[in-house]
Amino acid sequence: MPKYTLAIHGGAGTILRSEMTAEKEKAHQQALLEALRAGEALLEAGESALVAVESAVRRLEDCEYFNAGKGAVFTHEGYNEMDASIMCGKTLAAGGVAMVRGIKNPISLARCILEASGHVLLCGPGALQFAREQGLEEAPPEYFFSEFRYRQLQEARARGKAQLDHSQKYGTVGAVACDRHGHIAAATSTGGLTNKQYGRVGDSPLIGAGTYANDLTCAVSCTGYGEYFMRGVVAYDVSCLMEYKGMSLEEAAHHAIHQRQLALGGDGGLIAVDAKGNVALPFNSAGMYRGWVREGEEAEVEIY
Amino acid sequence: MPKYTLAIHGGAGTILRSEMTAEKEKAHQQALLEALRAGEALLEAGESALVAVESAVRRLEDCEYFNAGKGAVFTHEGYNEMDASIMCGKTLAAGGVAMVRGIKNPISLARCILEASGHVLLCGPGALQFAREQGLEEAPPEYFFSEFRYRQLQEARARGKAQLDHSQKYGTVGAVACDRHGHIAAATSTGGLTNKQYGRVGDSPLIGAGTYANDLTCAVSCTGYGEYFMRGVVAYDVSCLMEYKGMSLEEAAHHAIHQRQLALGGDGGLIAVDAKGNVALPFNSAGMYRGWVREGEEAEVEIY
Repeated sequence: MPKYTLAIHGGAGTILRSEMTAEKEKAHQQALLEALRAGEALLEAGESALVAVESAVRRLEDCEYFNAGKGAVFTHEGYNEMDASIMCGKTLAAGGVAMVRGIKNPISLARCILEASGHVLLCGPGALQFAREQGLEEAPPEYFFSEFRYRQLQEARARGKAQLDHSQKYGTVGAVACDRHGHIAAATSTGGLTNKQYGRVGDSPLIGAGTYANDLTCAVSCTGYGEYFMRGVVAYDVSCLMEYKGMSLEEAAHHAIHQRQLALGGDGGLIAVDAKGNVALPFNSAGMYRGWVREGEEAEVEIY
Repeated sequence: MPKYTLAIHGGAGTILRSEMTAEKEKAHQQALLEALRAGEALLEAGESALVAVESAVRRLEDCEYFNAGKGAVFTHEGYNEMDASIMCGKTLAAGGVAMVRGIKNPISLARCILEASGHVLLCGPGALQFAREQGLEEAPPEYFFSEFRYRQLQEARARGKAQLDHSQKYGTVGAVACDRHGHIAAATSTGGLTNKQYGRVGDSPLIGAGTYANDLTCAVSCTGYGEYFMRGVVAYDVSCLMEYKGMSLEEAAHHAIHQRQLALGGDGGLIAVDAKGNVALPFNSAGMYRGWVREGEEAEVEIY
């Protein structure tokens, strides 16, 4: 029986040790460890990689430290509009949601879209309608409100442009897993850009850009400057480098981030696993909140 | 100086000779020829591939025969919601729009997003706001109305499910081109599914899924069962098969449609060019409206 593996991220960006306090560091590490434990408990019980990545991402969505779910940033109009996607490496089934408001756990909506919609991507009010018909848990605007995020919006508005949340040292969340049955899955969730306008959607809800999974190659979740990850089709690029070019998981993930994204000008990172339980967590930014655990080993979390 | 090449499609699907009249065939062939001529005139004048594919797709959007622009199908709620995307193979710049209403030429909005938004994908009312600020041409609901499309909606509603427009023998449109400077570009535009609900978005506005262009490999525009093209990340797959696996344009395009999409269960086709002016137009459905022209040669159009 293959051993399980789980990796998670809480966003990549200009996370500088000099701007961190010991307390903030510890709080983030604790949040990452709790998400790892939630996913690991399911993998240990023999559950699927798909169930485990959903569970780990739900925990990160429920934590106000990260830009997803409860901690989602504000749009220009003062809403919390969220994007998420999930893919199953066994079946290549996938679900994504973009620009949805008021859903407590967008990643569970993405999974519901995968399972029950007959579609891959639902957007906006229509996605909320689908979520209601499916009985997904909703949350009022107060749930998503925080003074900190609201101040970020005011500052961004004053500067007059949308900003990548990772410049504020928080970001998109994601998880990838390999289960005891040798299947893999990937999940990504985000609140997008502070002060975003015009219905801008990034890479997180898009299969191939922010999320991809295929048992034959890898499961990938990306974080970073979404526009560059979309133009680079980064998640699927890692898979193609393995399948068509014969690279290992480590080589492919490294090449996608340190060669191709850097050449394009893209800033960020990704987490990836393959069906043998290998893990890669490359990033070309100053830091990336990340953690991983392999069956029988201690969980690890790192920031820089 | 490289010779220019242009290819276009007007959708793939169950286009059966037995259900065609000579008159309908001729009208479609004429529409395809006019779109080819519009793009070719620009390429002949030394304009870029990006400008040529936009122009060819605009002509197809302006024609009521195809499911894009004027001919866009109706959503469940009776609206015309359109998706489009465009990518420049020279710069890897890209623009996409999803779920936009009332814009006469969504492909020109996609190009405007590429040029002026700083983003890659805009969706819904926010995309319309951006279009208005940029002065894109609007059109009232009557412009998009046709008895034929409205009857399709009533029939689909009666059957109680969304249907792929190509089952009605019309579909998505697209263009790919190689210009005299050796640069390539791709563009795709669609009205999506008749009776679509829940803000469903397909592959057409998504870079890597429905559209991709890179001077080093190919420019691709897809048409077919969008959900399968998204799960297969088909447009970028053709590029990766060339770049990483060393396939020719013809081999890669054929493999993506006849091996990988068929294995996944996906129905449809694509058009592709490379920077040497090669063309490929594979499809695994009964037919695909398509046309192509090379510098110094006669334009050709085919359906089956």
